[in-house]
Amino acid sequence: MVDIATRVYNHSFKVDPIVRSLIDTDFYKLLMCQSVFRNKRDTRVEFSLINRSTHVPLARLIDEGELREQLDHIRSLSLSRGESTWLRGNTFYGKRQMFRPDFMEWFETLRLPAYHLERVGDQYELTFEGGWPEVMMWEIPALAVLMELRGRAVLGGMGKFELQVLYARAMTRIWEKIEQIRQLDGLKLADFGTRRRHSFLWQDWCVQAMIEGLGDSFVGTSNCRIAMKRDIEAIGTNAHELPMVYAALAEDDTTLRQAPYDVLADWQEEHDGNLRIILPDTYGTQGFLDHAPDWLAGWTGIRIDSGDPAAGAEIAIDWWTSRGEDPREKMVIFSDGLDSAKIIELHQQFRGRVKLSFGWGTLLTNDFRGLVPDDALAPFSLVCKAVSANGRPTVKLSDNPNKAMGPEAEIARYKRVFELGPQSAQAVEV
Amino acid sequence: MVDIATRVYNHSFKVDPIVRSLIDTDFYKLLMCQSVFRNKRDTRVEFSLINRSTHVPLARLIDEGELREQLDHIRSLSLSRGESTWLRGNTFYGKRQMFRPDFMEWFETLRLPAYHLERVGDQYELTFEGGWPEVMMWEIPALAVLMELRGRAVLGGMGKFELQVLYARAMTRIWEKIEQIRQLDGLKLADFGTRRRHSFLWQDWCVQAMIEGLGDSFVGTSNCRIAMKRDIEAIGTNAHELPMVYAALAEDDTTLRQAPYDVLADWQEEHDGNLRIILPDTYGTQGFLDHAPDWLAGWTGIRIDSGDPAAGAEIAIDWWTSRGEDPREKMVIFSDGLDSAKIIELHQQFRGRVKLSFGWGTLLTNDFRGLVPDDALAPFSLVCKAVSANGRPTVKLSDNPNKAMGPEAEIARYKRVFELGPQSAQAVEV
Repeated sequence: MVDIATRVYNHSFKVDPIVRSLIDTDFYKLLMCQSVFRNKRDTRVEFSLINRSTHVPLARLIDEGELREQLDHIRSLSLSRGESTWLRGNTFYGKRQMFRPDFMEWFETLRLPAYHLERVGDQYELTFEGGWPEVMMWEIPALAVLMELRGRAVLGGMGKFELQVLYARAMTRIWEKIEQIRQLDGLKLADFGTRRRHSFLWQDWCVQAMIEGLGDSFVGTSNCRIAMKRDIEAIGTNAHELPMVYAALAEDDTTLRQAPYDVLADWQEEHDGNLRIILPDTYGTQGFLDHAPDWLAGWTGIRIDSGDPAAGAEIAIDWWTSRGEDPREKMVIFSDGLDSAKIIELHQQFRGRVKLSFGWGTLLTNDFRGLVPDDALAPFSLVCKAVSANGRPTVKLSDNPNKAMGPEAEIARYKRVFELGPQSAQAVEV
Repeated sequence: MVDIATRVYNHSFKVDPIVRSLIDTDFYKLLMCQSVFRNKRDTRVEFSLINRSTHVPLARLIDEGELREQLDHIRSLSLSRGESTWLRGNTFYGKRQMFRPDFMEWFETLRLPAYHLERVGDQYELTFEGGWPEVMMWEIPALAVLMELRGRAVLGGMGKFELQVLYARAMTRIWEKIEQIRQLDGLKLADFGTRRRHSFLWQDWCVQAMIEGLGDSFVGTSNCRIAMKRDIEAIGTNAHELPMVYAALAEDDTTLRQAPYDVLADWQEEHDGNLRIILPDTYGTQGFLDHAPDWLAGWTGIRIDSGDPAAGAEIAIDWWTSRGEDPREKMVIFSDGLDSAKIIELHQQFRGRVKLSFGWGTLLTNDFRGLVPDDALAPFSLVCKAVSANGRPTVKLSDNPNKAMGPEAEIARYKRVFELGPQSAQAVEV
């Protein structure tokens, strides 16, 4: 029995939309958006796509017309009634009404602002300008669209069973990783893989596989749409864009030096508990912690997102100890370039010394390495970052010099202001 | 949009039938059945299930009630109008009206006869008695039911994603085999895997994967239902049951010695071309060929179904040469215990020396080895054979003493009559 109506309906789309919901985005985007909406609503920002993997010729792989159709579709999206109800009614990290009524009213009327798209050689220049709360919402869907269109370009020529076996191989690979890590005693792990996922359906599959395979060790997903659909926790706190924009807005070196702490002071007014997670690496973890005010040592934990993760965790443990805190009561969230082997290694190294948690990203939701000729589905390092705020360039240094970004002179200034010492470079794969 | 009617319909079954069609069987069964219907219609036979893999405790794994439900369901089946039309109207091996009107009229009214089922220790005694044309149709569905019920018993406790990954692994394995063998120049290969398949849906998947993956190198399937559904060739000729029953009916040693040739004389009256395939191993290939009448050397080819396959092919080549035939014009069909590595080896050894063809069975449609704990889904050696004809026991010797069957005294007599020399034993895995 064929459901004729479904078939007719499916054929009525002019485009197969990649992003179908404004909350098909990372939870921390909404938390940060609310914070920005409250504290820095009038800031003008520019976000820009940056393909760190220049060997992937996006403009040759992806048709410009198709890319525009997908981006235009995202601009047509607005928060649905059910999504709004879920955001308003849900408990996040045990707290009700995480999102304030004034923010929700604004979000319910939000449409994403215009984009600027231009082909430059084999790459696309894709930028978004406007008010910070609106523009920042482009980051995740823009990345997801580019990643998935690139995948579709590769998959388009494959046969039905070849495709099924491709996914069979990818499923087997994820399941084997799950089988490895579920041996870990006391594991806590979340999906952080929205931005560079292979596709929405694939991320949704990975999440469901982890629900079954990891049980209580799987604590949730960063993706709000999937959290809603699968009735699990939405996970996330804050990201580099807050200190980057705050820093760019600083008038002089003194306020620049203070900017990363201002971000967290604003954050602390709104959030407590598991949402008080320090992301210390924007301008170097060591310097950030050395100069941190004492109240920050009382926060719940630290997220390690660049540099050598074990070294970063040791720095955090030493810092807590030096501030009279018990590291065993503190949370360390690893979220940079994780895969099962690294998760196992870090778990074994830090289990019992701190409260451990893992935010597993690209190598969870996009590990198609080696599965097609020329490795044409391998994930690559695509980001969409705030590049300026109120006309001033942003800078990121991070604990990995390969992740630094910004104008050269500004990078030098920031290194001086934040007293950045020597760094060791790590390859940026994903 | 949920198709409510489909869901309600799916829930209306009391049992999920494993065999849903009388032509969900091997094509050669129908060819042989027509031959028996014409030449030996009144012969009374007994078929019996034989589990050569006694370490698989079928009666502990499979509920007797469920087994009866499945067997009862098969007894309720009759040829559908569409199936009859397909058999009557199709071209098999380039020939129209392969099935004569009198046979089709009989087949259209066929219901399978009663079965006898009894638990004996950890095994089932399952026998079928009656007229040869009716009883012989039990062989394939009985085997398929037992194999699939055993699989269901193992799969029943698994989670949804665990199951999906199990099939993902099995799909990946088949596809990797396809990728290996499709490199072979001039490969011709058919699916012979009905009887010991993992399940109907799985066999159907394997066939479709080979249609896509092997292209013209995939020449068809032995399964009539799948051949009809996928619009491909039904493949097969004849099997051991013909000489076994003819031999059991022989009144003395002289007619016994002649019986295997009588089978083929009857066959030759009905069939030509690709259906004139000698199955020489029932009582030893070497002796069969040494004493064969000259007209048999004119047949199209030989199927090698026991013993060392390369040795069997060399014997056939020598025999054709000794009879003045050009082996390069002859077909050799390998059909015993094949897997991709063996197919590649045999192809490389005999390519150009004969016309090669492969009938790939259990390790195509049931290779779940190593995919679940205790290897509980590994295929095993289950057969359903004619054990007596008109009250006299049947005997099979084959080129592998581990495949011999029949009463000891009769085996000794057959060995003497057919002058069987020393044999080398091969493990019977599947």
